[in-house]
Amino acid sequence: MDVISVIRTKRDRGELSPEQIDWVIDAYTRGEVADEQMSALAMAILLNGMNRTEIARWTAAMIASGERMDFSALSRPTADKHSTGGVGDKITLPLAPLVAACGAAVPQLSGRGLGHTGGTLDKLESIPGWRALLSNAEMLHVLESTGAVICAAGDGLAPADKKLYALRDVTGTVEAIPLIASSIMSKKIAEGTGSLVLDVKVGSGAFMKTVEDARELASTMVGLGNDHGVLTVALLTDMATPMGLTAGNALEVRESVEVLAGGGPADVVELTLALAREMLDAAGLRDADPAKALADGSAMDVWRRMVAAQGGDPDAALPVAREQHVITAPSSGVLTRLDAYGVGVAAWRLGAGRARKEDPVQAGAGIELHAKPGDRVTAGQPLLTLHTDTPEKLPYAQEALESTYDIAPPGTPYEPTPVVLERIA
Amino acid sequence: MDVISVIRTKRDRGELSPEQIDWVIDAYTRGEVADEQMSALAMAILLNGMNRTEIARWTAAMIASGERMDFSALSRPTADKHSTGGVGDKITLPLAPLVAACGAAVPQLSGRGLGHTGGTLDKLESIPGWRALLSNAEMLHVLESTGAVICAAGDGLAPADKKLYALRDVTGTVEAIPLIASSIMSKKIAEGTGSLVLDVKVGSGAFMKTVEDARELASTMVGLGNDHGVLTVALLTDMATPMGLTAGNALEVRESVEVLAGGGPADVVELTLALAREMLDAAGLRDADPAKALADGSAMDVWRRMVAAQGGDPDAALPVAREQHVITAPSSGVLTRLDAYGVGVAAWRLGAGRARKEDPVQAGAGIELHAKPGDRVTAGQPLLTLHTDTPEKLPYAQEALESTYDIAPPGTPYEPTPVVLERIA
Repeated sequence: MDVISVIRTKRDRGELSPEQIDWVIDAYTRGEVADEQMSALAMAILLNGMNRTEIARWTAAMIASGERMDFSALSRPTADKHSTGGVGDKITLPLAPLVAACGAAVPQLSGRGLGHTGGTLDKLESIPGWRALLSNAEMLHVLESTGAVICAAGDGLAPADKKLYALRDVTGTVEAIPLIASSIMSKKIAEGTGSLVLDVKVGSGAFMKTVEDARELASTMVGLGNDHGVLTVALLTDMATPMGLTAGNALEVRESVEVLAGGGPADVVELTLALAREMLDAAGLRDADPAKALADGSAMDVWRRMVAAQGGDPDAALPVAREQHVITAPSSGVLTRLDAYGVGVAAWRLGAGRARKEDPVQAGAGIELHAKPGDRVTAGQPLLTLHTDTPEKLPYAQEALESTYDIAPPGTPYEPTPVVLERIA
Repeated sequence: MDVISVIRTKRDRGELSPEQIDWVIDAYTRGEVADEQMSALAMAILLNGMNRTEIARWTAAMIASGERMDFSALSRPTADKHSTGGVGDKITLPLAPLVAACGAAVPQLSGRGLGHTGGTLDKLESIPGWRALLSNAEMLHVLESTGAVICAAGDGLAPADKKLYALRDVTGTVEAIPLIASSIMSKKIAEGTGSLVLDVKVGSGAFMKTVEDARELASTMVGLGNDHGVLTVALLTDMATPMGLTAGNALEVRESVEVLAGGGPADVVELTLALAREMLDAAGLRDADPAKALADGSAMDVWRRMVAAQGGDPDAALPVAREQHVITAPSSGVLTRLDAYGVGVAAWRLGAGRARKEDPVQAGAGIELHAKPGDRVTAGQPLLTLHTDTPEKLPYAQEALESTYDIAPPGTPYEPTPVVLERIA
């Protein structure tokens, strides 16, 4: 087997054989296939695609590159959620303790933000003392004792994916549906969850800009999960506008706690409950009532125990950025558009995100929204508040926000977009 | 400027701007753009193409990455030839001294073989004592004193191309017309020749398998040369069957000397004279008579002086392989096909070529042809003689030759393919 023949097969629009896929993933993990060879193959896959058979084998080969976790000894059924990433997407924070409060075990391996989308671990790290990095034994202990754990994936899970993901990030080969699907699903299947709900974001703030692309990604992942014995369901959800009223690390933790306290923005509550119902159904807990668990404080109880079990202080004050800057509405009328991508880029430039993996993030930085599409606004009222520790970056953030919103004349009708667009099972 | 935006532009079928091209070639040469990023870009170029404007800029940027030679001080007009490579393509060996004997200066920077195609330098190195590596001063001296020089390109010419060529070789990105054209032409233009004749091979033994591809490559290169002030002409020539009656290093030197002595196979003589006439026309030497220079021994005189000037002994016996194996005709009739690619692969496996750049080649290894398409053959007569120092490789060479030839019943009509298929100026 040689790598050039594998690259040529895909370059010339052929189908990779199971032997070619197994060999190239293994040889790349061992360092026998070089980065420059894998990136050429990744570009050929991005441009020429892979069929379902190839994607399934590619995913299986990435799972086989590392260890598999096993939660079958737990007394509760396991349920996991994965979001493809968006702006203001803090859903994991209220969702994991909520589903645990309803009787499932939620082993939530999460990631960090890169570019304009935030990362769950970055958000939780704004809680003083909270630790993302747990050993497998610690992870299992938190999961057993609280019902939920949100932590970083260990190095042992799908190391081929880890290496390939870092490579794709620097070679312009991230946006390939077969590679995105196999990357997500190899980790989730290796993690050993019994069921999985996918939140596939669609719109300017998401990787998938169109419903067609999101649908293809979702159905590819659902097929992969079910083929590997993980009951998998996907919701396509709107990411044309930011989720909730905050984008930023501590800002989103605060909003998540509001949801757990029975309040919070309507769209965050709606999506949290929709995903919780899917997770509980998939875990076989059809009688659970997540709305009740939010209302009666049981989800909040799990949250507090989960944060504390990972060293965090659930009562500590969250970090606040050193500077705030308010952007006001230039005219009165109806806010008809507030673009997720623009807000995400601005939050990133304010310090909430990172340009390179090794960069730190600011806990307090980000953006607060004072209105959402469909809301009436009055000239001069606050529209957005920008938070940052590095005010010298304010002009760049403001630049990103320049054509991010539209205000239509008063009385203009507005047709709201549903939070959940489609369900794929 | 960042490399991912450059990769994305080409990945998404956009046109690279002059600034993007200049930046990426320079940054790659300096090591700021990594190999894995350039290989992803090369694959995107292979699959999505470049237009004429992009190719011209890409070539100019590669020329600008290094030094340019200058032969304007020579008293004679300069003429150069480049072949895209084939099986048994020894034409440079008789051609360079022949054109020099007719009054032009021929600065012939040549390469080594890789895969199934041979390399001019490998062939000449089978002459005891001959050196491929000359300093610029030595090169100029040989050129001035003998009229022709065949040597390796120095490290200073188009270093970007050198680095990119090595990368393409290991990443399945060789077969991209924009990259092949810019690679060849950047070196030829930097070399400083006044005129250039391109021998673009077409057929199984060539990189270009179809006349359409060869025509596109040829017209791209002709355009690039003329745009840079190098009078450039291309001939498309047949490479469905090997050139001449030998493929291998010392074997081809012997055949070349036969041509210089006024003999040799008809197709080698025809192509040598066709290319010589084009080179002499392009150099403004329209009254020269290359056929006479072959017949009267003046080309042979230049050959002997040129070989001696580079340390070679023109009278030394050439190396002979330790083992010979004859393949005989299985039936009587007309040889209607003898496939260049199969013969090339067999010669390579016998030791005439290399799999990796650092491998040595066997001087004596290769294949002698005892018949060419159109010839009548008798059952049991020798068809091919295989030469090798490593007889354990014979079975692999024989395997490559298995479906390489067809013998039709006696009397089957045969329509010969012309040596020169098309001229592009």
